[in-house]
Amino acid sequence: YSRDKYEGNEYAGVVTGLAWTAVGGEILFVESSLSKSKGEKLTLTGNLGDVMKESAIIAMQYIKAHAEMLNISDDVFDKWNVHIHVPEGAIPKDGPSAGITMVTSIASSFTQRKVRPNLAMTGEITLRGRVLPVGGIKEKILAAKRANIKDIILSEENKKDIDEIKENYIKGLTFHYVRNIKEVLDFALLNEKVEHPIQL
Amino acid sequence: YSRDKYEGNEYAGVVTGLAWTAVGGEILFVESSLSKSKGEKLTLTGNLGDVMKESAIIAMQYIKAHAEMLNISDDVFDKWNVHIHVPEGAIPKDGPSAGITMVTSIASSFTQRKVRPNLAMTGEITLRGRVLPVGGIKEKILAAKRANIKDIILSEENKKDIDEIKENYIKGLTFHYVRNIKEVLDFALLNEKVEHPIQL
Amino acid sequence: YSRDKYEGNEYAGVVTGLAWTAVGGEILFVESSLSKSKGEKLTLTGNLGDVMKESAIIAMQYIKAHAEMLNISDDVFDKWNVHIHVPEGAIPKDGPSAGITMVTSIASSFTQRKVRPNLAMTGEITLRGRVLPVGGIKEKILAAKRANIKDIILSEENKKDIDEIKENYIKGLTFHYVRNIKEVLDFALLNEKVEHPIQL
Amino acid sequence: YSRDKYEGNEYAGVVTGLAWTAVGGEILFVESSLSKSKGEKLTLTGNLGDVMKESAIIAMQYIKAHAEMLNISDDVFDKWNVHIHVPEGAIPKDGPSAGITMVTSIASSFTQRKVRPNLAMTGEITLRGRVLPVGGIKEKILAAKRANIKDIILSEENKKDIDEIKENYIKGLTFHYVRNIKEVLDFALLNEKVEHPIQL
Amino acid sequence: YSRDKYEGNEYAGVVTGLAWTAVGGEILFVESSLSKSKGEKLTLTGNLGDVMKESAIIAMQYIKAHAEMLNISDDVFDKWNVHIHVPEGAIPKDGPSAGITMVTSIASSFTQRKVRPNLAMTGEITLRGRVLPVGGIKEKILAAKRANIKDIILSEENKKDIDEIKENYIKGLTFHYVRNIKEVLDFALLNEKVEHPIQL
Amino acid sequence: YSRDKYEGNEYAGVVTGLAWTAVGGEILFVESSLSKSKGEKLTLTGNLGDVMKESAIIAMQYIKAHAEMLNISDDVFDKWNVHIHVPEGAIPKDGPSAGITMVTSIASSFTQRKVRPNLAMTGEITLRGRVLPVGGIKEKILAAKRANIKDIILSEENKKDIDEIKENYIKGLTFHYVRNIKEVLDFALLNEKVEHPIQL
Ligand SMILES: [Ca+2]
Ligand SMILES: [Ca+2]
Ligand SMILES: [Ca+2]
Ligand SMILES: [Ca+2]
Ligand SMILES: [Ca+2]
Ligand SMILES: [Ca+2]
Ligand SMILES: [Ca+2]
Ligand SMILES: [Ca+2]
Ligand SMILES: [Ca+2]
Ligand SMILES: [Ca+2]
Ligand SMILES: [Ca+2]
Ligand SMILES: [Ca+2]
Repeated sequence: YSRDKYEGNEYAGVVTGLAWTAVGGEILFVESSLSKSKGEKLTLTGNLGDVMKESAIIAMQYIKAHAEMLNISDDVFDKWNVHIHVPEGAIPKDGPSAGITMVTSIASSFTQRKVRPNLAMTGEITLRGRVLPVGGIKEKILAAKRANIKDIILSEENKKDIDEIKENYIKGLTFHYVRNIKEVLDFALLNEKVEHPIQL
Repeated sequence: YSRDKYEGNEYAGVVTGLAWTAVGGEILFVESSLSKSKGEKLTLTGNLGDVMKESAIIAMQYIKAHAEMLNISDDVFDKWNVHIHVPEGAIPKDGPSAGITMVTSIASSFTQRKVRPNLAMTGEITLRGRVLPVGGIKEKILAAKRANIKDIILSEENKKDIDEIKENYIKGLTFHYVRNIKEVLDFALLNEKVEHPIQL
Repeated sequence: YSRDKYEGNEYAGVVTGLAWTAVGGEILFVESSLSKSKGEKLTLTGNLGDVMKESAIIAMQYIKAHAEMLNISDDVFDKWNVHIHVPEGAIPKDGPSAGITMVTSIASSFTQRKVRPNLAMTGEITLRGRVLPVGGIKEKILAAKRANIKDIILSEENKKDIDEIKENYIKGLTFHYVRNIKEVLDFALLNEKVEHPIQL
Repeated sequence: YSRDKYEGNEYAGVVTGLAWTAVGGEILFVESSLSKSKGEKLTLTGNLGDVMKESAIIAMQYIKAHAEMLNISDDVFDKWNVHIHVPEGAIPKDGPSAGITMVTSIASSFTQRKVRPNLAMTGEITLRGRVLPVGGIKEKILAAKRANIKDIILSEENKKDIDEIKENYIKGLTFHYVRNIKEVLDFALLNEKVEHPIQL
Repeated sequence: YSRDKYEGNEYAGVVTGLAWTAVGGEILFVESSLSKSKGEKLTLTGNLGDVMKESAIIAMQYIKAHAEMLNISDDVFDKWNVHIHVPEGAIPKDGPSAGITMVTSIASSFTQRKVRPNLAMTGEITLRGRVLPVGGIKEKILAAKRANIKDIILSEENKKDIDEIKENYIKGLTFHYVRNIKEVLDFALLNEKVEHPIQL
Repeated sequence: YSRDKYEGNEYAGVVTGLAWTAVGGEILFVESSLSKSKGEKLTLTGNLGDVMKESAIIAMQYIKAHAEMLNISDDVFDKWNVHIHVPEGAIPKDGPSAGITMVTSIASSFTQRKVRPNLAMTGEITLRGRVLPVGGIKEKILAAKRANIKDIILSEENKKDIDEIKENYIKGLTFHYVRNIKEVLDFALLNEKVEHPIQL
């Protein structure tokens, strides 16, 4: 799929992740969107397996439990449903490595802050906010480069995987190693809001 | 099934899509209908597979999140249930390519605007409104022509598939390449309302 | 099953359909019944497959969306649960061809109008009210005749199937070809109410 | 199971049915019990298959729709949950033939009327109140006799099955052939209430 | 599992049952616990099969329908959730024979009455309160003796199984044959409350 | 997985457990987190099997039923949802042995008390608060030592398993044998609160 290119940062809630499949690495987009509601509901689409759905549930809980850190008023969760989608619908997706991408997507939607341009990320999250290492790093990095990514966020524990890749392959990429979700969000979310932000 | 012909645009919520099956291309109809309700409910029928059901869920969320763009008052979603049906019930259907057809159907139901006559469409949607390319383009186009379709909406990324079809086969068809759902709705929905529109 | 005979029209909500099974055609009865309720609920019994259940859901939505046409006050749907049953419980049933029978049954229950005597019907419905052709027409017609049926409602698109049956087999039967559900209901429901109608 | 004997009529809601299994006929007991509640709930236990569960759902709807006939105030259904159990829990049970037994059990619970002593019954029900014939009649009748039953209710359409049984086997049994549920209840329920009836 | 010993009667809601497994008889504990709640909820844990879960549902309904007999105020069921657990979680358990143990456990929780010391029991229950015989009696009795049990409650219909066991094996055990749940509760529940009873 | 090291006690709700898998023993972390809510909800993630999910449900019920013992106001359960996660999401986990780890995690979250440093634990729980022995003790102990654990809580009934391990392997470890959950919590929870405790 040669069409998988970085697609800019004009939308709140759209974050670029990295996936590792049978046919190599590729980028994927995590999209989130809010709609007004009475009961708090989390909708997940994109042909997601159970582990990936759990990542979204953990991401949502992390944001709820750390709303203050992001200046999100916590009555907002009662008033808005969250829908997370990972295109493309025909392709089954699974695994925990989209965790940090999902948490960043939700944080962007609830703050309407822009995501840093040309940034991609991969890493599992835990409920307390740890970022765990994931597999397929080499393939993912090559895909990121092809897709015009400049900055990549990874778990500190994946540094050793980058150190094993030939210098040449990673030229032009900057790696940002993190220990916890706060570091991810501090780097990934700009202070600038998207154009025409919704009023929460 | 020689009976699959374009059937006019007298009803709100009825939009012509294009499907690609084991036996070739064919047209299909996406129908949506509203009923008064207390809780917001989305009912899906027509022997739809999981991916196709997800398309409907994404379409619904897109319309909710972009209600203002379509001059839909957003308290309307609390008051009306949406039912989407894809005849014929005996035939299993799946895949993401009815996404733009579904979003157009829901938009037509909530605005009671007529759908452009002799129009068919195929394309996957994403939550932020991107229109993604789909497969089976040649077979779908031939089916559209047999069914008396004049205008076809496709993802910009499916242009290359049209360019590969012999001139002769597509005579009389006009292709409308789009990047996002807004372009689909701008072209597909007429300003004119259907006869006897329901009051929302 | 020699006992499958037309059983009269004394009850609201009981409509005779035609089924096509491995052992030939036969008549079946669709029964619907209302009970007072707080939440609107649709209960389906009779060992129905998923496609047949969807027919009932579509039929219910059609009646809700066209309540005015039948002089049904639309607050009635909040106050009454609908139960649809297709005897006999030991026999699995499926397929979309009971659609018009179901919509007629529900309409009869909500209006308490009698169903035309000695009438049977078969046809798939769509959400906008189209009546689609179904299979097994010859076998169904023979079963109808054995069961003492006089009038049969079919999709206009099934006329060609009747034209292929020998004159002799269909003597005494009158066929009513329809394009949409309104035509079905106009013919199938008498203005006369059943004895002891319930007050809706 | 030599212990399966008729067990008297002291409890409301306990009705004797007839089952036909791989090892012959036997009697079974349908028990129903009420408990105060906010939402109307129907609980089914006893290792029941889907068809037998549907019989219970149909029975419940019949009673709701015909409450007046039994002098049951219809606000009673909002205030009481119904639980139907068929001992013994280790034995899977299925089929529609307990329908009339279930409807009699529920009617007895809601009226607290005694069930006629030494009575057993078997027959499928439909939503409009028809009683349909069932299979295994000879085996069921022999089991009834062994269990000290005197009166048996059957569908009129099962009369031919009784006529085929040797006179000798059915001596001492009286058969009551019925067409509809009203006839079942008229015969099966005594006017006398059980001791210590609950106040509905 | 040599550790399965009778464990005293200090807790409300803990009752000793007898199980019969592939490797012989053993004792098991049914535990129930209450927590304040808005909606009445029954939670079941302990790797229970469907038949055993149904026993718990029947037990709960019996207690609700016979609250007065136990001096339980019936508004208590709206205010407290019931959780029933059968250790040990790794071992699948099924069958109806824990019925009387479950009903005794729930009754003890709702009355906070102590359970008679050194008592075990086995028997299926029905909704009207009958206690049915169960299998594996010999193996269960031997396990009870090893576990320091003195009194055993059984269905009257299991007396014949005890009569077949050698005198020697059952020395020191007293058998209490019952016909219905009332007899079980009359014997099993002491009038004394547990220490620090919860206020219902 | 050489990265599995004890990770400190700065977070409320994070407790170190011991697991026994096909490839040997290892430590795992049970994390719990609270979020404000209307209905009491328990969310479980981490690829947990049914038995492990039941452990969490039992742990939650134990805390609710013993809130007073921990100075937890019991209206707190209506106001906060609990989410329990066990990293890592890609690895399926099951079995009852995380019971005491889960109950300690929930207790720490609801009290915001710190967990004793360098402590790990393994043991099944029952509803009344018993701590049952579990398997794989030797492998678990070796993993604990590698991970820098100093104190280990076990069921009293697992003492015999420790006695069989060579002195040398367990040098530097202190074992704390318990009979019930109260003893676990008394030892595992410090009186000190975490930094920046949330206000319950
Ligand atoms: Ca791709
Ligand atoms: Ca991974
Ligand atoms: Ca077709
Ligand atoms: Ca496609
Ligand atoms: Ca038949
Ligand atoms: Ca058909
Ligand atoms: Ca039996
Ligand atoms: Ca039968
Ligand atoms: Ca054991
Ligand atoms: Ca048993
Ligand atoms: Ca690990
Ligand atoms: Ca274990």
